[in-house]
Amino acid sequence: MKVQFNRIVIVGVGLIGGSLGMAVRQMKLAQDVTGVDLDSTALDSAISLEAIDRAETDIKKAVQGSDLVVLATPVGHFEGIARKLSGSLDNGTIVTDVGSVKGPMVERLERQLSPAGKFVGGHPIAGRERSGVKAASAALFKGAACILTPTPRTDPDAKSAVKSLWEAVGCRVVTMDPDRHDRILAAVSHLPHVAAFALVNLLSGLETGEPDLINHTAGGFRDFTRIAASSPEMWRDICLANGDSIIERIEEYRAELDSLKRMILNKDSTGLKKVFERANAVREKLNKERD
Amino acid sequence: MKVQFNRIVIVGVGLIGGSLGMAVRQMKLAQDVTGVDLDSTALDSAISLEAIDRAETDIKKAVQGSDLVVLATPVGHFEGIARKLSGSLDNGTIVTDVGSVKGPMVERLERQLSPAGKFVGGHPIAGRERSGVKAASAALFKGAACILTPTPRTDPDAKSAVKSLWEAVGCRVVTMDPDRHDRILAAVSHLPHVAAFALVNLLSGLETGEPDLINHTAGGFRDFTRIAASSPEMWRDICLANGDSIIERIEEYRAELDSLKRMILNKDSTGLKKVFERANAVREKLNKERD
Repeated sequence: MKVQFNRIVIVGVGLIGGSLGMAVRQMKLAQDVTGVDLDSTALDSAISLEAIDRAETDIKKAVQGSDLVVLATPVGHFEGIARKLSGSLDNGTIVTDVGSVKGPMVERLERQLSPAGKFVGGHPIAGRERSGVKAASAALFKGAACILTPTPRTDPDAKSAVKSLWEAVGCRVVTMDPDRHDRILAAVSHLPHVAAFALVNLLSGLETGEPDLINHTAGGFRDFTRIAASSPEMWRDICLANGDSIIERIEEYRAELDSLKRMILNKDSTGLKKVFERANAVREKLNKERD
Repeated sequence: MKVQFNRIVIVGVGLIGGSLGMAVRQMKLAQDVTGVDLDSTALDSAISLEAIDRAETDIKKAVQGSDLVVLATPVGHFEGIARKLSGSLDNGTIVTDVGSVKGPMVERLERQLSPAGKFVGGHPIAGRERSGVKAASAALFKGAACILTPTPRTDPDAKSAVKSLWEAVGCRVVTMDPDRHDRILAAVSHLPHVAAFALVNLLSGLETGEPDLINHTAGGFRDFTRIAASSPEMWRDICLANGDSIIERIEEYRAELDSLKRMILNKDSTGLKKVFERANAVREKLNKERD
């Protein structure tokens, strides 16, 4: 399916919103890309970086006559935006998002937006160390996975249109239930990030007297700081929106650390080696799957 | 100081031992490099990769007439090797090691080797994802830090010779007390690895039904598997040899995770954002120091 929009409105021109705008414009997937943001500096940058055709601060005005609205702010802003949009959307306007949390959020957005079926939850799994529109790139989505989370209420045409958009910018689209998305992401992304933030926070006060040492510890502290170098606001919102799944995973992780601690305490040479071998095997399996 | 050895014996021709042999041979820092290993396949590979001039399985025979012996096996083997060497070393032979744990190990090796002052503890902070001599490279140490841990008993000439060797192969040499080395490394390297191993172990059974998803989670699970992809035997030995410091760090880490969990549970938006901002600041500071 070839996708062609008249007007796409991107709400939140950060790394993801800005990159999507660039890709859409370069590939001429829409006649017009309008950016909406509370931060006027971000809007100026987005225009000069050619991520959007024009900027708008009044979201109600922006969405009129658009055929697609993409929510690309931190997840915590979604509900407020939906309340504002309520009643302002044309019947044909599709709404999607790029948030890292789906379950309850999808339900709320469906409830607030009308017609409900025109909302399609989405999550392109793309990111980089830096955030903000200045780090944006049209190539960000090339080869990335994008998860769509339609529900029984989702309009099939709306789903097809959103799927075509992400495929056009380079994503491999996967579909799953919103709750399943949240459980899986809590494991493969949210817990790892929380674990990295906790480690960096713990060691941030560390005075080695040799700052360079940290820069030299490959596979150590420095690698963790890279994982933990994402937008604080985004991660705050993810933790608040997917709290239950994340807490469950943190508790499992603590139990795993306790088990390792016990092995070290008991000098359990066999047990430790087995744990470390298993991690090696997982890595090899992933590398094979990637090939 | 220009360093020139007659004969260097490398005990354990894995990634580090093999790389050191290659660098020494390419830079002609010794007349002869002898490799000792229990694994004859590793010795064969080391010869064909030109990491050593010749192989020897009898360690007592190997060290005779050598001016430098480098212990490059997993740390757990050091004491057994020192017992075997006891009485076989010439008076002038310097002994050093490349182990990731120093404190009690340095003391034991000084006690077992005679004269004690000829032992100089060392730890080149270099590594890569794969282990074994097949992953070795003469360039491994270029730009890396190497920590030496001399004690009041260390012979100054022995220390100078070992320092010159590491500088010759490209390291920046840092000197510190053995116990300080262990406390710092527990924080910047051992805890991060244990944290990564625990996470990979926890999630290894995860069935997403979408194996590719894991490969796509940049900054998530996949990054952790890379940190955890080092030699299981090496990490077992590090955990056993530096257990006290590592356990202390694991406990601090658990407390940090608990604090994050509480913030998520209490929906403490301000607290969470602060933690995530601090991690960002640490990352920026490290990047600046590196520049």
